[in-house]
Amino acid sequence: MWHDTYLSTVLRPDDAYARAHLLPHLFDALTAHALMLDTQGLPHAGQAASLLRALRRAPFPPYDPQVEDVFFSLDRRLADEDPEAAGALRTALSRNDLDMTLYRLNARERLMRASQRLLHLRRTLLDLAGREVDTVIVAYTHHQPAQPTTLAHYLAGLENVLARDTGRMFAALGRVNLSPMGAVALAGTSFPIDRQLTSRLLAFDRPIENTYDAVSASDWQVELAGTVTAAATTLSRGVYDLLLWASRGLLTLEDGLVQGSSVMPQKRNPVALEHARTKFSKAIGATQSVMLCAHNVPFGDINDPGPDMQPPLHSMWQELCEGVELLTAALTAPVINRTAWREEAEGSGSAVTELADVIARQQGGGFRQAHGAVKTLLAQLQASGRPLASVTAGDLAPLGVQLPERELAAALDPAAFIARRTTFGGPAPAVMRGALHTARERLEQDILIHQHTQQRFADARTRLEGGTEG
Amino acid sequence: MWHDTYLSTVLRPDDAYARAHLLPHLFDALTAHALMLDTQGLPHAGQAASLLRALRRAPFPPYDPQVEDVFFSLDRRLADEDPEAAGALRTALSRNDLDMTLYRLNARERLMRASQRLLHLRRTLLDLAGREVDTVIVAYTHHQPAQPTTLAHYLAGLENVLARDTGRMFAALGRVNLSPMGAVALAGTSFPIDRQLTSRLLAFDRPIENTYDAVSASDWQVELAGTVTAAATTLSRGVYDLLLWASRGLLTLEDGLVQGSSVMPQKRNPVALEHARTKFSKAIGATQSVMLCAHNVPFGDINDPGPDMQPPLHSMWQELCEGVELLTAALTAPVINRTAWREEAEGSGSAVTELADVIARQQGGGFRQAHGAVKTLLAQLQASGRPLASVTAGDLAPLGVQLPERELAAALDPAAFIARRTTFGGPAPAVMRGALHTARERLEQDILIHQHTQQRFADARTRLEGGTEG
Amino acid sequence: MWHDTYLSTVLRPDDAYARAHLLPHLFDALTAHALMLDTQGLPHAGQAASLLRALRRAPFPPYDPQVEDVFFSLDRRLADEDPEAAGALRTALSRNDLDMTLYRLNARERLMRASQRLLHLRRTLLDLAGREVDTVIVAYTHHQPAQPTTLAHYLAGLENVLARDTGRMFAALGRVNLSPMGAVALAGTSFPIDRQLTSRLLAFDRPIENTYDAVSASDWQVELAGTVTAAATTLSRGVYDLLLWASRGLLTLEDGLVQGSSVMPQKRNPVALEHARTKFSKAIGATQSVMLCAHNVPFGDINDPGPDMQPPLHSMWQELCEGVELLTAALTAPVINRTAWREEAEGSGSAVTELADVIARQQGGGFRQAHGAVKTLLAQLQASGRPLASVTAGDLAPLGVQLPERELAAALDPAAFIARRTTFGGPAPAVMRGALHTARERLEQDILIHQHTQQRFADARTRLEGGTEG
Amino acid sequence: MWHDTYLSTVLRPDDAYARAHLLPHLFDALTAHALMLDTQGLPHAGQAASLLRALRRAPFPPYDPQVEDVFFSLDRRLADEDPEAAGALRTALSRNDLDMTLYRLNARERLMRASQRLLHLRRTLLDLAGREVDTVIVAYTHHQPAQPTTLAHYLAGLENVLARDTGRMFAALGRVNLSPMGAVALAGTSFPIDRQLTSRLLAFDRPIENTYDAVSASDWQVELAGTVTAAATTLSRGVYDLLLWASRGLLTLEDGLVQGSSVMPQKRNPVALEHARTKFSKAIGATQSVMLCAHNVPFGDINDPGPDMQPPLHSMWQELCEGVELLTAALTAPVINRTAWREEAEGSGSAVTELADVIARQQGGGFRQAHGAVKTLLAQLQASGRPLASVTAGDLAPLGVQLPERELAAALDPAAFIARRTTFGGPAPAVMRGALHTARERLEQDILIHQHTQQRFADARTRLEGGTEG
Repeated sequence: MWHDTYLSTVLRPDDAYARAHLLPHLFDALTAHALMLDTQGLPHAGQAASLLRALRRAPFPPYDPQVEDVFFSLDRRLADEDPEAAGALRTALSRNDLDMTLYRLNARERLMRASQRLLHLRRTLLDLAGREVDTVIVAYTHHQPAQPTTLAHYLAGLENVLARDTGRMFAALGRVNLSPMGAVALAGTSFPIDRQLTSRLLAFDRPIENTYDAVSASDWQVELAGTVTAAATTLSRGVYDLLLWASRGLLTLEDGLVQGSSVMPQKRNPVALEHARTKFSKAIGATQSVMLCAHNVPFGDINDPGPDMQPPLHSMWQELCEGVELLTAALTAPVINRTAWREEAEGSGSAVTELADVIARQQGGGFRQAHGAVKTLLAQLQASGRPLASVTAGDLAPLGVQLPERELAAALDPAAFIARRTTFGGPAPAVMRGALHTARERLEQDILIHQHTQQRFADARTRLEGGTEG
Repeated sequence: MWHDTYLSTVLRPDDAYARAHLLPHLFDALTAHALMLDTQGLPHAGQAASLLRALRRAPFPPYDPQVEDVFFSLDRRLADEDPEAAGALRTALSRNDLDMTLYRLNARERLMRASQRLLHLRRTLLDLAGREVDTVIVAYTHHQPAQPTTLAHYLAGLENVLARDTGRMFAALGRVNLSPMGAVALAGTSFPIDRQLTSRLLAFDRPIENTYDAVSASDWQVELAGTVTAAATTLSRGVYDLLLWASRGLLTLEDGLVQGSSVMPQKRNPVALEHARTKFSKAIGATQSVMLCAHNVPFGDINDPGPDMQPPLHSMWQELCEGVELLTAALTAPVINRTAWREEAEGSGSAVTELADVIARQQGGGFRQAHGAVKTLLAQLQASGRPLASVTAGDLAPLGVQLPERELAAALDPAAFIARRTTFGGPAPAVMRGALHTARERLEQDILIHQHTQQRFADARTRLEGGTEG
Repeated sequence: MWHDTYLSTVLRPDDAYARAHLLPHLFDALTAHALMLDTQGLPHAGQAASLLRALRRAPFPPYDPQVEDVFFSLDRRLADEDPEAAGALRTALSRNDLDMTLYRLNARERLMRASQRLLHLRRTLLDLAGREVDTVIVAYTHHQPAQPTTLAHYLAGLENVLARDTGRMFAALGRVNLSPMGAVALAGTSFPIDRQLTSRLLAFDRPIENTYDAVSASDWQVELAGTVTAAATTLSRGVYDLLLWASRGLLTLEDGLVQGSSVMPQKRNPVALEHARTKFSKAIGATQSVMLCAHNVPFGDINDPGPDMQPPLHSMWQELCEGVELLTAALTAPVINRTAWREEAEGSGSAVTELADVIARQQGGGFRQAHGAVKTLLAQLQASGRPLASVTAGDLAPLGVQLPERELAAALDPAAFIARRTTFGGPAPAVMRGALHTARERLEQDILIHQHTQQRFADARTRLEGGTEG
Repeated sequence: MWHDTYLSTVLRPDDAYARAHLLPHLFDALTAHALMLDTQGLPHAGQAASLLRALRRAPFPPYDPQVEDVFFSLDRRLADEDPEAAGALRTALSRNDLDMTLYRLNARERLMRASQRLLHLRRTLLDLAGREVDTVIVAYTHHQPAQPTTLAHYLAGLENVLARDTGRMFAALGRVNLSPMGAVALAGTSFPIDRQLTSRLLAFDRPIENTYDAVSASDWQVELAGTVTAAATTLSRGVYDLLLWASRGLLTLEDGLVQGSSVMPQKRNPVALEHARTKFSKAIGATQSVMLCAHNVPFGDINDPGPDMQPPLHSMWQELCEGVELLTAALTAPVINRTAWREEAEGSGSAVTELADVIARQQGGGFRQAHGAVKTLLAQLQASGRPLASVTAGDLAPLGVQLPERELAAALDPAAFIARRTTFGGPAPAVMRGALHTARERLEQDILIHQHTQQRFADARTRLEGGTEG
C-alpha cells in the first residue's frame, strides 16, 4: 500500500519516534477529549474514556506497516474493543489539533526538564561561589589580565545570566502551555464541545483563542529554540573560561571527568568540559532545523512544524540538558588552585587601576589626569626594565603625586583592590555575600515555581489516568 | 600610529557607526553619570553635566583618525573646554560599562520601533479581518484544499501569533532595560557612587546586580535575536500564503507595490510581498551573526558582543521593520477577489467534513463510521465521474444514511459550514466578530503599554538634555 | 571509575555510534597500519594484521563501561589474544590520527552514497523530461505567469543544477580522501614508518602533507556541509514548485506517496513532497551543527570536529539522502495533467512577449518600442474588458503595427512561442532533445566516475579483509 | 507612482547598491550584448555599443525616484541620445538574464579579491614559518600540553588548510563564471542571437546550458557561501590559538594593532585579533542570509537570489576579507617570545611520548607496554612530588627498562623530540624546510593562476570599454 521509500523514510521512523516520546501524551489528550465529550452528553464518550484508561495500562499495539501512525493504531484497537466508543471519540477531533496538543504537552515536559537542569547548575554555581568569596583571580578583558576580582564574583555573574534564562523559560511556558484541542482540522466543529474543559483537564492555561492559529502556529517552538540559543551561547562562554583555566592548571576536574591519551602517557584531558562545549554547539545547531522548518512555508496545518520538527526539538533539548549536566558535574567538586591564581594577580599588576583611583582622590585632579600619570609611570618602569612591584613613593613624586609607602602598597595589592570595591554588584567579600544571599533567594523562588508547575502537570496526569492526585 | 589595516577595517567604520547611531545615547549616559557624581559630591561633576548639555547641541567634533573612538573625541573636547570637568567625568567610568549602556539604550530604542511596527501591522490585519468576516475562502492543509473558512479567521489567526510576538518583545525589554553604569571595567570602583540613581536617570528599570555580568553578558542580545526569529518565521509563513493568493488572482496589490517586466508586457508582479519575504530571511540571517558573536568566546568584556555585534543587530531590526512595513502596506488596501474565492470553495468540495458530522449526529453511529461512509461515497462519485455537487439523498441511502435533500445541500454548502462552526475560536461570523473585538482590546492595551514606555524614555531624555518633561 | 554523567552523556552514546557506523573502518585502518609496520620490518606487526583479519569476522567485544571506546575494546581483545601483536600495533599510532582516519573513511562512504542518490534523481528528472518535451507549461516569475515553456525545459534546468552539485561532491571527495595515518598524536613519530603505503592500502589519494593539519583540520567536513547546503537549497526550490503544481492539480503523486485525513474524507495530501521539504530543511539545519563545532575552537586535536561532529554529519547525509529518495519516488511516475497546463498557458496570455518580438522584427523600430506598443494594447484591452484572445489585426493598426491575422494568432500561441525559442538552451523541442542528449551523456560520465571510485574503495576493503579483489 | 514604503525600503536602497557596486558590470554586459547583436546583423546595435562606450565615461544619470532602477536610468538616457540604438539594445534582453549576469560578474570580482587576500595571508604564514622552523612550542590537544613541535609546523599546517580553501575558491569560480546572457526572461528568444559570442566577450567560460537554469539558479551563490564558511571556520580556529598565545605573552602584536583602556593604565589589548574573530563570525552569519534567501522559494526568476541576496553576499566577502587582512597584519611582524615557549616545553614534560618510543624500541616489547611503563613512572613521580626532570636511569630499572642517562635525557628533551620526528609531514627542521619549499611552490602556482585569471577579466573589460588590451 505505501511506497517503500515513504515507509522507510517517513512512516516507520515517525512511528518509532511517537512510541518513544508521545504515547503518554496521546492517552492524556484522548482521555481528556473523551471526558469532555461525555460531559457534553455525547453518547458512548464515557465508555471511550474508560477504555482509554484501561488501554494505557496495556501494552501498546505492535507496529504494523499497514497502519499510518500511533493514533490509528490506537483507533483500531479501540474499535476492536468497542466500536461505538471508538466512533464517539473521533467526534470533533482531528489529528491536526490532536498532534499539536501532543507536541505542546511534550514541549512543556522537556522545558520543565531543561529548566530543572538549569536550576541545578545555578545552585552548583552559587555553592561554589559561596566557597570562593575570598579567592582572588585575575579577570581578563580582551584576552589580557585586567583587574583582580574573586572567583565568586565571576561565578555569581554567570549564575545571574542563567537566572535570566530561567525567566525566559518560564515565560515561554506561558506561550507553550495552551490548548489546541477542539480546533479539529482548523475550523472547529458543528458539535457543541467545551474547549475550556478539555484545556483544564490537560492542565493547559487556556485554549488557543483562534482555531486556525491552534493547528498552524510554530512561534512557540521557535521561541523555545531562541530560549535554548540564549542559554547555550552564555554557557559556551563559561566553558571557554573554564577550559582556559583548566589548561593553565588553575582549576582541575575530578578523575571521572578526565580522559587520557593512547600515546601521550602524561595526559589528563578535561574532556567533560570539551564535550559540554560541543553539546551547546549542537543544541544551537538543532535550533536551526527548528527555524528552517518554520521558514517560508504556508501558515496552516503542514508537516514541517508538526511531526517533522519534533526530532530536532528533541535533539535541541537533549544536547542542552547533557551540556548542562556535564558542566554541573565539572563544577560540583573541582580543585581550585587558589595559590596559582593569587600569584598571577600579584604578578600581573592588575590592581594598578586602584593606584589611579587613589591619586585621583588624593590630588583632586580628576581620574583622567590620574590615569595619565599612572600610564607615564608604567612606561618609565618598562623603559628601565623594572617590575611594578618595585615602585616606591619616590617614583611618584616626579609625577606630582605624594603618596605614603603604605598607601602605595595598598593601592597595588589585589586583595585590597577587591576589599575596596564595595560598589553595588562589586566583588568586595561583604557585598558579594549579600549578593549571593539575594541570588539564593531568587533561586529558591524559581525552584518553588518549578515544583508547583511540575506538580500541577503531574496531578492532571493522575486524574486522566483515573487515579487520585498525590 | 594605527596600522592602516586596523584603521580602515575597525576604527573608521566603528566611528562612523557610532556617529550614525549612538551619539544621543552617549550624551545621555555621560550626563546621567555626571549628575550622579555631582549628587555624590564629586567636585567638578556638576560642571561636566552642564558642559555635556551644551555640547550635545553643538556639532560633534569631526572625525580624527588619531582618536580612537567617539568617546575619546568627546573626552578631548571636554578637556579642551574644562579639564577639571573632563577629569571628574572619567571617575568611576570605563568604556566597558559605558559602551554596554549605549548598546542597551540603543537596543531598547530599536525594540520600541520594531514593536511599534508590529502593532501597526496587527491593526492592519484586524481592520482587514473586520471587513472580511463573511468572505469564504478555502483553507489548505498539506497544500490541498481542506475546509472552508473565512479570510477573517485566517487573518485573525495570524494576528494572534503576532500578539504573542508583541508579548515576547515586551518581556525582552525587561531584560534589556537594565543599567550597566557603575560596573566600570568590571569590578565596580572604590569611589562612593550611586548606581541606582544613574539607572533611574536613564529610565532603566534597575542596575544589573553583578558588575561582572554588567560588562560581559550577551544573553539579552541573543534573546532579541530569538524574538526576531520567532516573528520573522511566522511572517514568512504569512507571506507564503499571500504570494500564493496573489499568483492565483485571489488578492491583488495596489499599483504602487507592483513592478512590471522589461520584456513581458503583461506582468504585474507582487514584488512588495517578495521583498518582504527576503527581508524576513535576511532578518533571520542577521540573527545568526548575533549568535555567532556570542558563541565560544570568553565570558567577559570583549569586542564580540560589544561594538562588533552592533551592525548585525542594526541589520536585524532594519530588515524586520522594513519587511513588516511592506507587509502592512500590502495589506492596507488589497483588492480581495471574493467571487473567485467563493467559487473555489464551492467547487472544491471542501465542506464535505460537515456531511460526515451531520451523518454522525443523525445516525448516532459515531464520527468514525460517518467519516468512513463519506469516504466510500466520494470514491463512488469519482469512479462514476460525477462531481460532488451532483449528490442526492438517493446516493446516501445505500450507505444507510437518510438525509432530506435540504439538509444534504446545507451539509455541502461552504457558507453553512462556516455558520455552524461556532466553536470557541471558530470562523462563524458572530463568533469571529467577538474574537475580533477581544483582539482589538488586547491590541489597544499593548499600544497603551508601548506609548507609556515610549513616553518614559522620552521624559528621561528631556531631563538629561536639561529640558522639562513634555 | 567514570562519572555517571560522563558515562551516560558521552562514553556510552559515543560507543554506540561507533559500533553502528565505524567498526569496518576501524578494522580497515588498523589492518593497513599493521601491514605497513610489517613492511617496515617491525616485529609482530604481521601477526597483528592477521589477528585483525580474524577478529573482524568474529563478534565485536560487547560493551563494557570500564573501557573508554571501541579502540580500547579492540586493543584489549588483541592483547588477550597476542600481547606482542597488540604491543606492536600501538607503535606510531594514536587515536588522534586513527580517529580522523575513521571519520574520513566514513565521510567518503556517505559522500558516495549521497552522490549515488543524486545521480538517481538526475536520471529520473531526465527521464521525465524526455517524456514531457512537448508539454506546454506556464513558467512563473515573481509568482506571476510569465512565459510558456515546456515541463522538460524546467526539469532539465533543475537537473543541470544538480549536475553541478555532483561536480561539487566529486571535488570535495578529493579533499576528503586524504590519509591522516602516521600523524600519530600530531608530530609524527621517531619510528621509520611509510605514510604513503598506509595511504595506498586504504585507497586514500595521498597522505596529508602536514601531520599537525592531519589531526586538526575541520575544513573538509565544513566543505561537505557546504556541499549539502548547496544541493538542499536547490532541492527545496524544486519542491516548492512541485507542491504548488500538486495543490493545483497539475501534477498528482501515486497513491503510495499520499496520505488522507482523519477528519476530511476528501483529502489526498502530497505528503511525500512535504516531508522531502522538511528533510532538506533538516539537512541544512544539521550543517549548522557541523559549522558550530568548528567555530571559535582551537586549531588542534579536540573533540569538537572529532567524535562530537559525527552525529550531525550523519544526520546531514541521512536527511539529504532521504529527501532525495522521496523526491525521486515522487517524480518516477507522477500523473502530469497536460490539459490543465495547456489551458492555463492559453488563458494567461503568457506568450505575449512574442507579439512584441514579432512587431520589433516587422517594424524594425526596436524591441523597446514594440514592448511599449504591446503594453498600450494590453491596457486598452483591459479598459474595455476584452480578453487577449479577442485581439485582431485591426486592434494593432492604431499602434502603427501591420500584422496579418495568421501571424497575429501565431504570435499569441504558446506552442508556437516555444517552437520559435531555438536559442541555445531554450525550450524548442528539437533544441531541448539535443540538450537532453548532452545531459544524459554527462550523467553517464558521472555514473562511470562514481562506479570506478566505488570499486576502488571496495577493492581496498577486500584486500584489507585478506580476500582477493572482485 | 510608487508607494512610499516601497520606495524607501526597496527601490532607493537597491538603486544605491547598484550604483556603488554594479555599474561597470552593467556597461560591460550591455556592451557585449550590443556587439553580439551587431555581429548578428541587427540594425542599430553597433550604434548602441558605441553609445554605451561613450556613456560609461560620462557621469551616470542622477537618481530619479520615478525610474525603477539603474537599468531603466541608462535605457532612458540611451533613448534620449539615440532611440533606435536604445530600441535595438532591448532586443533579446531582459533584466532577468542581465541582472544575473551582473551578479555573476560581481561575484567573480569579489571571489578574485578574497582569494588574493588569502594568497597574501598564506605567504605571510609561510614567511613567518620560515623564520620559526627551530622555535619549539608546546602543542596542546584537548586544551592540555601534549607534545613539543615547532611554530613553523603549526603555521604550515594552517597554511595547508588555507591552500585547500584557495582550491575551493578556484573550483567555485568555474561554476560562477558562466554566462546567463541570452536567456532573456527564461525561455531565450525568437531572435537569432549568439550566446557563445556574448559569453566570450565577457570572459565567461561558457553560456549556461539551459536558459531556465540561467535566470533561476542560486547554487553558485550558496556554494560561495559554503566556501567562505569553510575558510572562516578554519581562520576562527587560528585566531583562537593566537589570542591564547597573546594572552600568555608568547606572541605580541605590534603597537598599531593594539588598544589600551580608558580605565586600566596597563592594558595592551590584542584587539586586531579579536576583531578578526568577529569578522569571521559575521562572514559566516552573512552566509546564513544567503542560504535563507535560497530556501523554500520557487525555482525560477524571483528577487530572493537576485537583488535581495546581493547585500549579504557583499557583507560576507567584506567581513572575510577584512578578517584576513587583520590576521595578515597581525602575523607580518609579531614578536615571538621564543624563550617563554621553550621554557614551557621543557617544564611541561611534553616530550615524554618519546620516552615510551625509546623504551619500545629498546625493549622490543611493543609501544603498548612501553606506554604503560611510562604511565606507571609518572604516577610514581607524582606520588613522591618529584618533577619529571629529576628522573634518572635508576627510576626506570624497577620497570624493567635499561636506559643510559644520556639517552634518557635525550628522550625528555623537546628539541631532540622534534629532531627525531622526521616522518613525512613532521616537525623535524630538515623535513619542515622541505615542506615549506613545497608549500611555497604551490603558493606560487596559485598566484600565477590568480594573476592569469585576473588579467583575462581585465582584458575583457578593456576590450568592452573600446580600448586595447594592456
